[in-house]
Amino acid sequence: MKVIVADNAGFCFGVKRAIALTREVVKRKQTVYSLGPLIHNPQVVEALQKEGVKVINTIDGIKEGVVVIRSHGVPPQMVRKAREKGLEVVDATCPFVKETQNFVKMLSDEDYRVVIVGDNNHPEVKGLLGYAKKAVVINSVDEAKKIRGRKIGVVSQTTQSTSKLINVVDELLKKVEELRIFNTICSATVERQKSAKKLAKDVDVMIVVGGYNSSNTRRLYDICKTICSCCYHIERAEEVKKEWFKGCKVVGITAGASTPDYVIEEVRETLENM
Amino acid sequence: MKVIVADNAGFCFGVKRAIALTREVVKRKQTVYSLGPLIHNPQVVEALQKEGVKVINTIDGIKEGVVVIRSHGVPPQMVRKAREKGLEVVDATCPFVKETQNFVKMLSDEDYRVVIVGDNNHPEVKGLLGYAKKAVVINSVDEAKKIRGRKIGVVSQTTQSTSKLINVVDELLKKVEELRIFNTICSATVERQKSAKKLAKDVDVMIVVGGYNSSNTRRLYDICKTICSCCYHIERAEEVKKEWFKGCKVVGITAGASTPDYVIEEVRETLENM
Repeated sequence: MKVIVADNAGFCFGVKRAIALTREVVKRKQTVYSLGPLIHNPQVVEALQKEGVKVINTIDGIKEGVVVIRSHGVPPQMVRKAREKGLEVVDATCPFVKETQNFVKMLSDEDYRVVIVGDNNHPEVKGLLGYAKKAVVINSVDEAKKIRGRKIGVVSQTTQSTSKLINVVDELLKKVEELRIFNTICSATVERQKSAKKLAKDVDVMIVVGGYNSSNTRRLYDICKTICSCCYHIERAEEVKKEWFKGCKVVGITAGASTPDYVIEEVRETLENM
Repeated sequence: MKVIVADNAGFCFGVKRAIALTREVVKRKQTVYSLGPLIHNPQVVEALQKEGVKVINTIDGIKEGVVVIRSHGVPPQMVRKAREKGLEVVDATCPFVKETQNFVKMLSDEDYRVVIVGDNNHPEVKGLLGYAKKAVVINSVDEAKKIRGRKIGVVSQTTQSTSKLINVVDELLKKVEELRIFNTICSATVERQKSAKKLAKDVDVMIVVGGYNSSNTRRLYDICKTICSCCYHIERAEEVKKEWFKGCKVVGITAGASTPDYVIEEVRETLENM
């Protein structure tokens, strides 16, 4: 069975940066807190915990130490609160998410009705919401149909698919006078989606590797599923099942932006040894 | 044969206003010049000429009198030149076109790459171009594919179809960071297109009445043609041909925004007397 890994797969710039920043703080031997999981990969988060990083959901009760802001960002109110408490804050927000936060603030300041295309429950979106006086999150064309407004500003969660953004924009464009869109889907997302799409066409089975809580990994799975009917989302090599590959000649692997190389390698080896 | 006129057809607000403004000047018994045809309807332009309005293409050689700016607008340089020559200028530019001109100027001043969705040869578009330091006109998705830029501002010729604007926006959205769109397709255009679409579904033959040089009329014809295979574009009742209606039980009429009521009525009578 031939195994092909997608041209663009695994760790993106923002994830690498967040991990490096956190490890720098760990080196300083201070108490390190991560406000929510640093990235959406349980294996990496577990490794960081072993190195001493404590994952917390609130800074209530924290009196000293360094608070690392997760790669997905948090609402600005949380950062302010940490600083007011005298805690050191290390901002590991992905620079592309940071840019999106700035766009949301600017649109809100300029009185646009802010629309965030994304998932209401995702930490990145929760963070973005903190930058607008008022914003609405939409995740489908049907939700876009309900939006009213003369002057609408749109950003996207950085890990959404371009096609969803386009569909939402098409709907909004029918009824507003001004539509100001920042296409904030990051290049890592676009590249990984393109490579996955390309590879999925040429394989019998497609394996998508990454955290079950990772938005960009789930999107990769959604995309591959529409192209290759035998498509599986796993977090680790141990989850691979022999029966998935009956009659399979070529298997493709892609991985989300928060999936470490060693996990991809383990999956590759497991498949090659089958 | 049953004859049905579309709910929204014929003269729009901007056209009525342009004709009224011109006739007010005529009443003052001054020499009246129209810089290009006031509206895209030869019958109306001819009637105005009989009332004393002279259609000119340039103000070179004009020394006195009143210059009326056509409903489609002109580049601001032309207005300035007329004023510098001491000519009185009456601006009959449609207020919706005026608004589009202001958006083009604002986008250009704010360093957007200005994209005008429309027809390069149409006077409205030629006028709009005068409001930008630099702008590009695109009329199809293929042309949109060639556009590059980080920060793009889009307006539409007021008489384009929403579907074309959406298709162009979809293409641009794939590759720019910021896309700021003013949906300047006017409500008269949208309403006439909607009504025509609705009517075309229920008739055997569809007659579109309006100037051959009228962009919005041509768009109505394009739209009706996709729905009703027996579709004809005429300027006047005399052009109606008996052979178009063999076996026809219901005929629909729509008319562009520059088609006077009396022309629509003549077409209706001609059809009813068949």
